[in-house]
Amino acid sequence: MDFKKLIEKAKQIEGFKCRVCPQCNGKACRGEVPGPGGKDSGAAFVRNCEKLSEIKVNLDTIYSPVSVDTSIELFGARLRYPILAAPIGGLIPNYGDKHGIDDYHYSKAIIEGCKRAGTIGFTGDGAKDQFFTDPLRVIEENEGWGIPTIKPWKQEEVMQRIALAEKAGVPAVAMDIDAAGLILLAMAGKPVSPKSVEEIKEIIDSTSLPFILKGVMTARGAEKALEAGAYGIVVSNHGGRVLDHTPATVEVLPEIVKAVGGKIKIFIDGGVRTGLDVLKVLALGADAVLIGRPYVVAAFGGAAEGVELYTNRIGVELEEAMIMTGCGSLQEISREVIY
Amino acid sequence: MDFKKLIEKAKQIEGFKCRVCPQCNGKACRGEVPGPGGKDSGAAFVRNCEKLSEIKVNLDTIYSPVSVDTSIELFGARLRYPILAAPIGGLIPNYGDKHGIDDYHYSKAIIEGCKRAGTIGFTGDGAKDQFFTDPLRVIEENEGWGIPTIKPWKQEEVMQRIALAEKAGVPAVAMDIDAAGLILLAMAGKPVSPKSVEEIKEIIDSTSLPFILKGVMTARGAEKALEAGAYGIVVSNHGGRVLDHTPATVEVLPEIVKAVGGKIKIFIDGGVRTGLDVLKVLALGADAVLIGRPYVVAAFGGAAEGVELYTNRIGVELEEAMIMTGCGSLQEISREVIY
Amino acid sequence: MDFKKLIEKAKQIEGFKCRVCPQCNGKACRGEVPGPGGKDSGAAFVRNCEKLSEIKVNLDTIYSPVSVDTSIELFGARLRYPILAAPIGGLIPNYGDKHGIDDYHYSKAIIEGCKRAGTIGFTGDGAKDQFFTDPLRVIEENEGWGIPTIKPWKQEEVMQRIALAEKAGVPAVAMDIDAAGLILLAMAGKPVSPKSVEEIKEIIDSTSLPFILKGVMTARGAEKALEAGAYGIVVSNHGGRVLDHTPATVEVLPEIVKAVGGKIKIFIDGGVRTGLDVLKVLALGADAVLIGRPYVVAAFGGAAEGVELYTNRIGVELEEAMIMTGCGSLQEISREVIY
Amino acid sequence: MDFKKLIEKAKQIEGFKCRVCPQCNGKACRGEVPGPGGKDSGAAFVRNCEKLSEIKVNLDTIYSPVSVDTSIELFGARLRYPILAAPIGGLIPNYGDKHGIDDYHYSKAIIEGCKRAGTIGFTGDGAKDQFFTDPLRVIEENEGWGIPTIKPWKQEEVMQRIALAEKAGVPAVAMDIDAAGLILLAMAGKPVSPKSVEEIKEIIDSTSLPFILKGVMTARGAEKALEAGAYGIVVSNHGGRVLDHTPATVEVLPEIVKAVGGKIKIFIDGGVRTGLDVLKVLALGADAVLIGRPYVVAAFGGAAEGVELYTNRIGVELEEAMIMTGCGSLQEISREVIY
Repeated sequence: MDFKKLIEKAKQIEGFKCRVCPQCNGKACRGEVPGPGGKDSGAAFVRNCEKLSEIKVNLDTIYSPVSVDTSIELFGARLRYPILAAPIGGLIPNYGDKHGIDDYHYSKAIIEGCKRAGTIGFTGDGAKDQFFTDPLRVIEENEGWGIPTIKPWKQEEVMQRIALAEKAGVPAVAMDIDAAGLILLAMAGKPVSPKSVEEIKEIIDSTSLPFILKGVMTARGAEKALEAGAYGIVVSNHGGRVLDHTPATVEVLPEIVKAVGGKIKIFIDGGVRTGLDVLKVLALGADAVLIGRPYVVAAFGGAAEGVELYTNRIGVELEEAMIMTGCGSLQEISREVIY
Repeated sequence: MDFKKLIEKAKQIEGFKCRVCPQCNGKACRGEVPGPGGKDSGAAFVRNCEKLSEIKVNLDTIYSPVSVDTSIELFGARLRYPILAAPIGGLIPNYGDKHGIDDYHYSKAIIEGCKRAGTIGFTGDGAKDQFFTDPLRVIEENEGWGIPTIKPWKQEEVMQRIALAEKAGVPAVAMDIDAAGLILLAMAGKPVSPKSVEEIKEIIDSTSLPFILKGVMTARGAEKALEAGAYGIVVSNHGGRVLDHTPATVEVLPEIVKAVGGKIKIFIDGGVRTGLDVLKVLALGADAVLIGRPYVVAAFGGAAEGVELYTNRIGVELEEAMIMTGCGSLQEISREVIY
Repeated sequence: MDFKKLIEKAKQIEGFKCRVCPQCNGKACRGEVPGPGGKDSGAAFVRNCEKLSEIKVNLDTIYSPVSVDTSIELFGARLRYPILAAPIGGLIPNYGDKHGIDDYHYSKAIIEGCKRAGTIGFTGDGAKDQFFTDPLRVIEENEGWGIPTIKPWKQEEVMQRIALAEKAGVPAVAMDIDAAGLILLAMAGKPVSPKSVEEIKEIIDSTSLPFILKGVMTARGAEKALEAGAYGIVVSNHGGRVLDHTPATVEVLPEIVKAVGGKIKIFIDGGVRTGLDVLKVLALGADAVLIGRPYVVAAFGGAAEGVELYTNRIGVELEEAMIMTGCGSLQEISREVIY
Repeated sequence: MDFKKLIEKAKQIEGFKCRVCPQCNGKACRGEVPGPGGKDSGAAFVRNCEKLSEIKVNLDTIYSPVSVDTSIELFGARLRYPILAAPIGGLIPNYGDKHGIDDYHYSKAIIEGCKRAGTIGFTGDGAKDQFFTDPLRVIEENEGWGIPTIKPWKQEEVMQRIALAEKAGVPAVAMDIDAAGLILLAMAGKPVSPKSVEEIKEIIDSTSLPFILKGVMTARGAEKALEAGAYGIVVSNHGGRVLDHTPATVEVLPEIVKAVGGKIKIFIDGGVRTGLDVLKVLALGADAVLIGRPYVVAAFGGAAEGVELYTNRIGVELEEAMIMTGCGSLQEISREVIY
């Protein structure tokens, strides 16, 4: 399997709501929630991509060549690339009900494919318990090599899920705090809500696992995550799916880096599509990236093998971008590579 | 009835000049005056929408959750949302002569629907007396729960209409001073003209009703309205229908707030289409919004029920946007929610 | 005849190279030289229109109404509007060889139509003598009421043509100095070239007529025109037809006004299409405008009557724009009407 | 043959991958590598063109006319124009395998055509030895009048190729150092890599030929080229073919001029399409330009004659642009012609 075939296969899946666009930029699927799109006008998703695209990098190949190291240490483990699969749940409501790939099978592709490629994937959560437990089962089947993401349920329920995650042997656990406004969940009898620093602290204190808070879009929010004791944050607007017209994640990244950089791991997602995009956000101070929608295409087009293939593709692109900008390691990717 | 059906129904109305676009942004109907569009190039209408869309908001759900209160006190009454229906007249010339919905029936849908939703609607005025009196009759039939808008006719005529409005029991009365250049009215024997502060003062002094001056686009204009004793102003460029190439209303809002904020109620219209848009303009200092064209779609697609449905839809969106930005009440929607 | 019929008629002219676009903005005819377009990429023509369009104006109708005076004094005469028809020549090569409207007939429509509307038109010049003398004959037939424009030929030739113009009784004479690079004229045995301040001074000294230098795009150029003794300049990039990628005329207007405003009359052309456009450039310091291409449509669609109709249309639009921005006379149109 | 026929002929070539667009701007061929396009999103190629297009020039024809001199001295020779053909190799993989024009025939058109027009062309290099030696043979057949470009191979191999170039009698030799990341070459058993200042110095010291380093996009890179002893640099992002999302070459030109201007010859390529573009980059401090893709069209459409025709066309356009901006020689093209 090569990438071209993966794409072709993904395109041929009957009832696949994703259009597998040449560039996944949020334009074709504007407003398709449920579906693969951004909320309402889709502006937040589109802006994520556009603002990344507007960043220009300094080409310079006059230097003494070195071998390039793309690896990173996270949660005490070394990953081959700073590239992680973002949590995605609700494959049936969001991507169609005819393709036969439910959350379990999707997670299987993600968790196994990322593991094979030397990185790690996040799994999701949802209105029904199985949206959390099925993916967790996949993680368990892979020696715990995955990061479950928990919605901001009531405290007790969050802590119960963390206990399940601990049992599965995961290296870290995450919460997408920006799901706090999902009224659909409340309507399904499972209310979510914002959480105070104290509540988050209580959750973090309840486990020895590194805790990642996903959905931070302001310096103040990052400081609160730090205060609560989080291992890391994901600078994320939930792919533009929870609020229209947020800034792009890459726009708010620098002020967040300024506020908490070095004190907490900074992940980012939102429009990262190429190895060059990874280089850009690392240059702006992120430690690693999460990629979402393109992994759906990779998983649908090639299951675990597709996920592995896609991860390596982005990784090799990162390596090339590092050569063209004179960076031998992730640490050397500094602001100076940005024009 | 749900919103999707409302839209479908509006689309099927024979001879309806509005195209019921997925996003009502002034592009499809550029220059259609008479008609639903903006004047000449349609730039003022389009810019209203674009400038609102360019404003980005700070997502932050790390806070202690509270219940959200979207209500506001105006004219001594409490409205459920800070969302009012803008005055629209001339339904036949502007929206087609086959649909059978004249100014009376349109006003009926607006006045009743807004009332049911816990807010209030404005009614319009025009070259023929009945364009004012028919809608006023609807207000009367609804215990006076509506705000009549009077064109800048000669002083005497304005005061006569205010007297009629008083008799109808309305809580406030408005004048769209920006209709002063409508040469078509002069040609129909009913000249309008600009009015000096003294003239406006004379009108305001003639009634005990709160008086709202609609069509203010500069800080200086707002100060003149304040000087004249107005209860409030509507920052408005008349939906781009009286002068091409004005700035967007949301562009001039901050300087107007700086000039008269707190001393006079500041309403705004122009491209407000979602609850998030309401949040944005309130964050910039507006007290409440008027929405125009989308109410035509709501009224045509569902009469009073459609108007109620649409109002509640925008209201719930506002509530969601408040949750995602950490605002418990309208007073808490400050500049800090703007990126 | 009304304007709509005029447009319809212009559209039906067989072999008319102008597409009679709803907005004449240089996009459809990019690069069509000869033809109606801008040179090469057409960027200069397009930019003229876009930069005008980007200027926003302050709507304010709270003032004591006055009657509006749009008249202006130029060359010792009073024009009803500050709106003049720009010189256009080569109607056959530029607008097609089947429509049967040559430079004589075109000039006839322009000169007579502008005269009827209370303003004045410029006429053109070209490789063949008759391109100058035919239009001059029309001026003569209209009591000298037109402004002939002479290309930057050799000194002697320029002065001969001025002598002819004097004999025709014109109120002023012009030179489009920006035609200096037209290699096609050199190939036709009639070389043009740049002219020094001294050469222009020599020309101006040879006549008692007010002399207008057309094609000034810099403050330095305006100062040289002033030094040479010109009555006025036309801020113009020749409709984008002599050099691609100049700034828009309205972009350079303010620095030119700053340099020579009040000391010399400042005309401007380039994308002026509406009365609101006229208001904008007057607010930025221009004394009057020239309009080019739309007059071709007016003349083709309605001859002298069409030219009169179009001129009055723009004039009335100017009047409306003055009402909406609180200007009682051209002198009152100041920077304050610009947002 | 005229230019129009050249274009028509180029369009009719069967299997020609270039679409011969009216404006060669990188949009139609986005991502087509191999092929004529820019890498991945094609943004770097497109941006080259757009940023050039955004630069506006000051039209001024009020000056004492002079004869215009477009010539320049380079490598001890005088060229008629500061316009050189950029190195392009791999005609079959990039432009199609049916047109029958391989690197030898392409180079023949370029080298002979440029020579006839009074300028000079660069030739390319590639994975197979003949991609270098075939074009070099053409240069030899033209009294050495061409500039071979060598990829950043291992030191020894580079120096061997320089020796071959010396034997062919060339006036200068170049290296496209920005090809350092081409992994395809490594896969073909011919690895390239970045080179340190010391390595470049060693190469330059091995020959008496002027050495041009192509692919410099930063002031720091230019300083390193100067330090290494280069005769000149080409500010180039390889037509956007080696790294997506670099700045445009014209964007980085000013800072490079500031760093090394006057100490080293500064060539630039990237989107230069007209004589006006040449004027623009010279005004910003470049000494001369290289043009790439349009020469492929010229060579395919008219062989050496086409290349000569195209070169003269751009040269005459430069002359016209100089007349319109008051420049008598290349030295007079200063920052003052830029708006």
